[in-house]
Amino acid sequence: MFECTLIQGELFRKLIVSIQDLVQDGNFMCDSNGISLQGMDSSHVALVAMALKKEGFADYRCDRDVTLGINFANLGKILKCMGSKDRLSIRAQEEGDSALFVFESEDSNRMSNFELKLMQIDQEQLGVPETQYKAVIRMPSSELQRICKDLSAIGDTVSISATKEGIKFSVGGDIGSGDMTLRQSDSGEVDGDDSEKIMIELEEPVQQNFALRYLNNFTKASSLSSMVTLSLGTDMPLVIEYKMDNLGYIRYYLAPKIDDEA
Amino acid sequence: MFECTLIQGELFRKLIVSIQDLVQDGNFMCDSNGISLQGMDSSHVALVAMALKKEGFADYRCDRDVTLGINFANLGKILKCMGSKDRLSIRAQEEGDSALFVFESEDSNRMSNFELKLMQIDQEQLGVPETQYKAVIRMPSSELQRICKDLSAIGDTVSISATKEGIKFSVGGDIGSGDMTLRQSDSGEVDGDDSEKIMIELEEPVQQNFALRYLNNFTKASSLSSMVTLSLGTDMPLVIEYKMDNLGYIRYYLAPKIDDEA
Amino acid sequence: MFECTLIQGELFRKLIVSIQDLVQDGNFMCDSNGISLQGMDSSHVALVAMALKKEGFADYRCDRDVTLGINFANLGKILKCMGSKDRLSIRAQEEGDSALFVFESEDSNRMSNFELKLMQIDQEQLGVPETQYKAVIRMPSSELQRICKDLSAIGDTVSISATKEGIKFSVGGDIGSGDMTLRQSDSGEVDGDDSEKIMIELEEPVQQNFALRYLNNFTKASSLSSMVTLSLGTDMPLVIEYKMDNLGYIRYYLAPKIDDEA
Repeated sequence: MFECTLIQGELFRKLIVSIQDLVQDGNFMCDSNGISLQGMDSSHVALVAMALKKEGFADYRCDRDVTLGINFANLGKILKCMGSKDRLSIRAQEEGDSALFVFESEDSNRMSNFELKLMQIDQEQLGVPETQYKAVIRMPSSELQRICKDLSAIGDTVSISATKEGIKFSVGGDIGSGDMTLRQSDSGEVDGDDSEKIMIELEEPVQQNFALRYLNNFTKASSLSSMVTLSLGTDMPLVIEYKMDNLGYIRYYLAPKIDDEA
Repeated sequence: MFECTLIQGELFRKLIVSIQDLVQDGNFMCDSNGISLQGMDSSHVALVAMALKKEGFADYRCDRDVTLGINFANLGKILKCMGSKDRLSIRAQEEGDSALFVFESEDSNRMSNFELKLMQIDQEQLGVPETQYKAVIRMPSSELQRICKDLSAIGDTVSISATKEGIKFSVGGDIGSGDMTLRQSDSGEVDGDDSEKIMIELEEPVQQNFALRYLNNFTKASSLSSMVTLSLGTDMPLVIEYKMDNLGYIRYYLAPKIDDEA
Repeated sequence: MFECTLIQGELFRKLIVSIQDLVQDGNFMCDSNGISLQGMDSSHVALVAMALKKEGFADYRCDRDVTLGINFANLGKILKCMGSKDRLSIRAQEEGDSALFVFESEDSNRMSNFELKLMQIDQEQLGVPETQYKAVIRMPSSELQRICKDLSAIGDTVSISATKEGIKFSVGGDIGSGDMTLRQSDSGEVDGDDSEKIMIELEEPVQQNFALRYLNNFTKASSLSSMVTLSLGTDMPLVIEYKMDNLGYIRYYLAPKIDDEA
């Protein structure tokens, strides 16, 4: 028997929204530590990894490891039926062919039960090596979302470069070219409230090109967290991470575009 | 001569919006008591009935009975030109081939006159028998609208069942199944402000299946009233009623789906 | 070298939005007095004229006259990347084949540079004669926008007639006909705050017909100014002007429809 309850069910709905346009289906791996998921997009360029710790749930019980094969579009349809303030419980049997999603309104006057058919999905779990990145940038998630959306009007590929001074997004296209630079916030400012601040940890300057199409997909997760972290290295995937306090994270990995002048 | 004036013209606009996607055209029957309308949808599954009492109008004068044959889409276009706070007057001659709609702004600085061509519509008025329903449920109209919209993502047919405990909407489809249950509010709660409360008058439990497509059409009337009443019987049409204080009501009748496991 | 800076960059973005659906490309004429533009729509029925005075800019420097050939859709894409509170600077060389648009956020933490490729556009500047109009109407721009949009649901052509009493917009179509009349505000009211007031300067009553399609295009400029001025004469173009305090104006000229009963 697997069973967990999340007070803010809405968070789980947003998570699925952040996954479903990128990955068609995948396995929720539920064990005594929490729920995790890995999935690649159909063109095998981007990887999503999600991990939710049991400590983030109001209730969490997992007697034996359970794998839930989920079609994300279908789960998304079911989660649309959840009220924005509803509590969410997920229940599944070890060998069952469906999972139960229960939504309960704050005042307990509305109660919903949805059964989602599960799938058999053959999928190997990829080991993502822990790496030392040359640059780690923390910035407001809404800012990253806006920049990626805006620059898409000009071109397909963005060049991201990080220096001590700031992070620069450049794009080129038929109509011209452009760049947007975010200056690192002063350390004095950063001491206080760190929201809306831009912080850069830099080992050495780095510059890489990425497809804006994927970045626009990733930034749908912006509603999960006010801040986002970008980790950049040379010839290694960009990592974009949204952390949900106490509950866990969703990470997107994107391979750089090589030989593209962007 | 027929002439009437409604202070909240917006209410009439909302009424027509609630009708025009379901019924193409119909006769406004104007007599000394008020205005009434009946119309069936093109597939003859659903019936709309509207009645506006003369007491709800600021002015009402009907020397002789008048029948106004209206194309609702065309009337809708004209009513779009009305300001949201405008006063609405309707005027028609007994034998005229057009009706006049006059909109006047609160400060009387903007005055609009629109003439709508009338149609000859052969339509028999159906007698809807007064029936004793097994279950009458009063609930927030926004709640019904949301439930019907949400469940449409899962399947085409909803099963509505009413018991002493509450009202349950169930749906099934390819991806799984689900149900949403609204608990009857405690009588203590109901004594006070009855908005947002769910009240069930039950003679005996009842369960019937309905096409969600029609319910989604009916619930466009939700802006007319914060509460809606559902009346259910066995093998008889569901009645969904929106009451506008003092002015009257709009009612939708929908035949149940038979032999559908839903 | 041409260089100018506008504190409210957003105003310039709105200007381009007000032009780009009507005119494909055109020349910004920059000289020591300011920036001006003229453009006709592809069917040569409507003319747009814009003039921005150097006094409206925080900085303005124009060593020699510069002509910037602009594709408005492309410039619109670039200006979409500007934040709503950003400062905008435009820079260009006399013989350059591109112009630089610089956006700077209020706190100077975000800085964007966009280079737009320029075009060679053969375009003669039309002299628009100063005329004495029979009627000049000043009214809220949102009101004009709403009226034009609403009446489009009924017909294609609007008849605008101005008298001492007010301004009347009439339309006719298959489904019927309609008119909306705005009464001139009392002079007493006008003495105070003139926003939301309707003022008519009338030499003699005038009535002309115009294509609503164009008016709907012009009224996209409504966000530039809360008031709009309509100037009407007999058998001469209607002029619709939006004034931006200190900065300048955008004017639309539209030839009347002749021999159309509207």
